[in-house]
Formats: sequence, structure tokens, C-alpha cells
Amino acid sequence: MPLRIELGERSYPIVIGTGLLPDPALVGSHVEARDVLVVTNATVGPLYLDPLVAGLAGKRVRSLALPDGEQFKTLETLARVFDALVETRLNRDAAIVALGGGVIGDLAGFAAACYQRGIGFVQVPTTLLAQVDSSVGGKTGVNHPGGKNLIGAFHQPRAVLADLATLRTLPPRELRAGLAEVIKYGLIDDADFLAWLERHLEALLALDPGALAFAVRRSCEIKARIVAMDEREQGPRALLNFGHTFGHAIETASGYGEWLHGEAVAMGMLLAADMSRHLGWLAPQDLERVRDLLHRAGLPTRAPSVGARRAHELMGMDKKVLQGRIRLVLLRRLGQAIVTGDYPADALQLTLTRHFEATAA
Amino acid sequence: MPLRIELGERSYPIVIGTGLLPDPALVGSHVEARDVLVVTNATVGPLYLDPLVAGLAGKRVRSLALPDGEQFKTLETLARVFDALVETRLNRDAAIVALGGGVIGDLAGFAAACYQRGIGFVQVPTTLLAQVDSSVGGKTGVNHPGGKNLIGAFHQPRAVLADLATLRTLPPRELRAGLAEVIKYGLIDDADFLAWLERHLEALLALDPGALAFAVRRSCEIKARIVAMDEREQGPRALLNFGHTFGHAIETASGYGEWLHGEAVAMGMLLAADMSRHLGWLAPQDLERVRDLLHRAGLPTRAPSVGARRAHELMGMDKKVLQGRIRLVLLRRLGQAIVTGDYPADALQLTLTRHFEATAA
Repeated sequence: MPLRIELGERSYPIVIGTGLLPDPALVGSHVEARDVLVVTNATVGPLYLDPLVAGLAGKRVRSLALPDGEQFKTLETLARVFDALVETRLNRDAAIVALGGGVIGDLAGFAAACYQRGIGFVQVPTTLLAQVDSSVGGKTGVNHPGGKNLIGAFHQPRAVLADLATLRTLPPRELRAGLAEVIKYGLIDDADFLAWLERHLEALLALDPGALAFAVRRSCEIKARIVAMDEREQGPRALLNFGHTFGHAIETASGYGEWLHGEAVAMGMLLAADMSRHLGWLAPQDLERVRDLLHRAGLPTRAPSVGARRAHELMGMDKKVLQGRIRLVLLRRLGQAIVTGDYPADALQLTLTRHFEATAA
Repeated sequence: MPLRIELGERSYPIVIGTGLLPDPALVGSHVEARDVLVVTNATVGPLYLDPLVAGLAGKRVRSLALPDGEQFKTLETLARVFDALVETRLNRDAAIVALGGGVIGDLAGFAAACYQRGIGFVQVPTTLLAQVDSSVGGKTGVNHPGGKNLIGAFHQPRAVLADLATLRTLPPRELRAGLAEVIKYGLIDDADFLAWLERHLEALLALDPGALAFAVRRSCEIKARIVAMDEREQGPRALLNFGHTFGHAIETASGYGEWLHGEAVAMGMLLAADMSRHLGWLAPQDLERVRDLLHRAGLPTRAPSVGARRAHELMGMDKKVLQGRIRLVLLRRLGQAIVTGDYPADALQLTLTRHFEATAA
């Protein structure tokens, strides 16, 4: 039985399985539109566009392959999607299918949000990160040179079709980046899942189908529950940004494209965990569990030496800042996160100095 | 008592009055944010930015003046608003105030819809068209070379502050263009209002304060009621597009900027009325009432010679096309419009040929 995100009339299913793409009975039942623009990239397109087009049998399908990479998640690339939609004269009853990772899903979803003030779209995520996180929940957008995802919309897909078979061609580095978000769900919401991940990390890295299916499903379950409570991130949904405020600063400081999003989030989660330890909420051995798991997953545990001041500045540009105060997601304990702006200023300062100054090794 | 648009938690007031702008008690009570970016243009800014800034006393106010004109309602100009928002480091709790006509309201509203996935905004319309139509109802967006308003969002303002004093500096041509939308409300919804307009047209053209206040208020009342029924235009809201499908084709064919939007709508209403007469719904003398009123208002009653085929093609790009069929707003009688795709194809063809072919004079 597929998972569902319960959002009233905007509810939709998340289908997780293997070999879904070429199946018209499945894909066709979730892509209702007759006219479809598949937006993909130069890496994923050659691998999975044909199977997906097979799954879309009976529809009028066009496709657009964008260059691959976070550095192309811009207003300029978005304009190319609008051009394609207008050139092919797609109307309000058409749909966009996003075939690719988080960049394609965010960008194509934002195009769907804006084209004719909103057309339908379906997410077909082909990376682990997109399957467990970015394809679910309706956050769409593009980057601005001044910060990640500063321009976007909440626009829920009509369905998410996560074909685990596509993970077989995923570069190992991207698989690990996706695991960062999986680990996130354990850290913020489910200590049992965290312990399960500690036991099954090698199976996940080896793409064991049973382990993958469980991890993707459990991640989506947690995300679905939180999004259903708070679609537009006015409350608990901010918990899902655990590691992201620190992480965005890393990504922006390094220029998009050097750190993968998941890698920056991993490092950000370690920073948030370290700050939680400063505050006495995590024990030193809890912090070591976090560091060990990230390390075993091949994720970074050393921040770039951008300087504490610059890092702090970049965090200030994050969307979670209200009334000039940086609200952070921190851990009260492993498996329970909170959002708070109520912490001693020097706890943040100390954490940033410890990790972002070149002299502090 | 101000009018209200009733949209649940997105409800907001429409304040109509004279000399509202410099009043901090009024403006401040409707612009809650502490950080404000006023988006205006090079024509309106020099006239009304100072009074508005006086009304925003006590807040941190920045402003951005864009070039004036429909041809600047583009993704490129939108990017300039994003740059200004990022440069001034505005966060989610900031607000945009749109000071200007429909172009500024649509563009600044769309920027507010997208920046950080949505910040607050307040409409301060300074043209008659914006006061009675575009500032009310949450439609925001920009044009694409392939069609008007093809890229946008539904994003309701927090308030609409319509200062009738600003109409005193409005060029007469723009006042007349705004009257087209006022006349629209009579035609689609209120035969009594239509008759009132026939009696008071000269007073409106002479900016008689009492006549203006009544016309703006009655127009906003009708729009508020229709938008409250159907915020996202899935049903009756399409009635408000009376004249717009024909009108958009005129605007697009002529290149943005040559015909004012209201002028194109006026011509489009006449076309729709003529087609309604073809269908036997309007009597010939009804059509003449429409033509006379538009003519007395100084609005165009002759279409450009773009050719029936090109006009038809451009209408096909309109957002109201569903399943490849052009749905039109037509008049069952004066004061009652319907949305329908159910008409003989040659009725449309005949209307387009009559008006868009150079040979047909």
C-alpha cells in the first residue's frame, strides 16, 4: 500500500518500489494529464527517459534535458523550462514530470508552480536524497547567488514515484549524501530508526534492496507525518531543517557545486549536535554516535575553514531567521529535535569557532 | 467601513479613501512588518514615494524604482526585485509594498509570492485599473514573450490601500483604460451599475470625488464577492476575464506596451459582446449600448488588423483553454456573463474575421 501525504485536497501518494518507471498501469494512473513535459538532466535522461516514456504510453510527451548540477538551479535555467512550456503550447491541464534528483525536482516543481499560476506535476526522484526528502512535501525553488532556495513556492506534487532501481546507477558519493537525510530522520524523530541505521549501514551502502526499501519508506513516513501537520513550515516542519542552517552556510560559502547538499547537511547536523552537547542536551558519547555514523557513511565530519564570522553571516540569510534572530534546530536528545532561538549566544559562537576557524583543527 | 475579501485566514481589507498614503495610523496598521521594501516605478515614485514613506514612519523602509511600462513586466525585472530583497537581507517577516499600477502590483506581488517561498505584501494601487481590478484578488505574475501573465502565482495581499488622490496625476489615457474594467463589472454582474455608469461617465472622467469613490467601491465589491467564491479560478472567477481572452490576443499581437491593458480589454469586451449578439443573447441595441459607453469613455472600438487566424492562435495560448478548447466569457444579457466552451465554432470565427481582418472595416 502506498504511503500518502495527508493534505486535504492536496493529498497524494508516495509509491516506493523497484522497476516502476516503464509500467504504464502504474505511471499512467498517477500522471493524469494528457500533455506532459518531462524535465530531466543530461545525466539522468540517457538512463531513464526511455523507460519513463514507456510508462507514459498513450500521452503526448515532450522532454527537456537541463545541464546537471546545483549550479544550474537558477532563475536562468527556470526560464528555459518556461520557454519549453510555451513553445510546446502546454496549457493549464498539462503536467510536468520531474525525472532526476533534488535539483531537477525543485526546479521543475517551481516551474509547475508558476506556469499559468500552477499546473500539476509528478515527482520521479532518481537519487536517494530526492526519494527520502526533496521530492516529498512540496517545497520547490531555485537558488540566488545570495543564498540557497531563496526563491520558490510551496507546490505539492500529484504523486511521488520512487523507483529504487534507479539508485543502482547513482554515484556512491551521491548515495552517501542521500544517507545524510536518512540519518536525519533518525536523529530528529526516531531513536529506534537511528539504531536500525547503525546496524544496517553497510547493507544500505551495498544497495541491499530490503534495507533500502525500509529506509526510504521509514524516512518518507516521518516526513509525511511532519508535513501533514505543517505544510507551510510555520511550526514543526522546521524540524526537517535539522543541519540545514549550518549546512546552507557551508554550501553558500563554498559556492554551489563543491559540497553536495547532503554532505553539507551531514556536516551541519554534526555542528548542531555539537552545539546541543555544549548546551548539555547530548552526552559526549551521543555526539560520538552521530560522528561515527556519519563517518561510516563516508560523509564529511570536518567543516571548511571559512571563518566563524562569515559562517555566522551566511546563517543569518537563512529563511529560519525571524526578527533578526537565528532560530536553530537542535537535539534535546537523540531522536528528538526542537526549534529554538532561545540559547546563549556564545554557545553558537563557540560552535562556529571550533569548527569554522582554520586554526581549530 | 472598509470592504473585506473573505478568504478565511487569507482575508484582507480594501481601504478606499482620499489622502490615505501619508497617514501612519492607517498605513502602519495595515503594514505589520518592520522591514519593508517599497517597489515602485520611475513615474509613480517621484510623486508618491515620499508620502508613503511618511505613512510608514517607524519602520525600516527601502525602495526600488523599476522602469515604467508593461514591457518591463518580465522575469528579468523580477530578478531585480529578488536582488534588492537579498541585498537588503530581508527575511521571512519582511513585507513588500507595491506602489504603482497593475504592472508594479503584479510583479511585486509575484516577488513576494516567491521570495523565501512567500512573504507578506500590501497593494497601494495608484491607477484606476489597479484600484478596481489588479490589486484585488491575489493574481500576481509576469509576462512571457509567448503570452501575458503566463508565469505567476496566487498570492493574496495583506491589505489593499486605494488612495483616490493618486488618480489626480493619472494620465487621462490611463484613467480611461481603468474605466474599461469598471464598465466590465457592470456588464458581467450588475445592470443597475451599468446604467449608473451610463449616467455618470462624464463625472468619472472629470474625477468627481463622489462618483469615483462609488465606482471604485462598487467594482471592488463585485470583485471581492466573486474572488471569495473561487480564489483560484476554478469556476466563477473566470467571469472576471470578460474581454480578456480576446484582449490578450490583441496585446500579444501588438507587442506589449502599444495597447494599454484596459484598452485591449475594452476592445475584447466589445468582441465578446458582438459574439454574444451573434449567438442571439444580446439584442443589437444592447451591443450599441456597450459600444457607445466604451466610445464615450474614449476607449478603442476598432481591433488591429492582425488577421483572424493569428488572433485565434493567440487566444489559444490563453490560460482559459482546457483540453484544447477555447472557453470564453460571453454575455447572456447585459449584467450577466457566463463561461462557456459550448458555442458553434463559426460564431467565434465570424467574430474574429469581422474585427481582425484589414478588409473588414
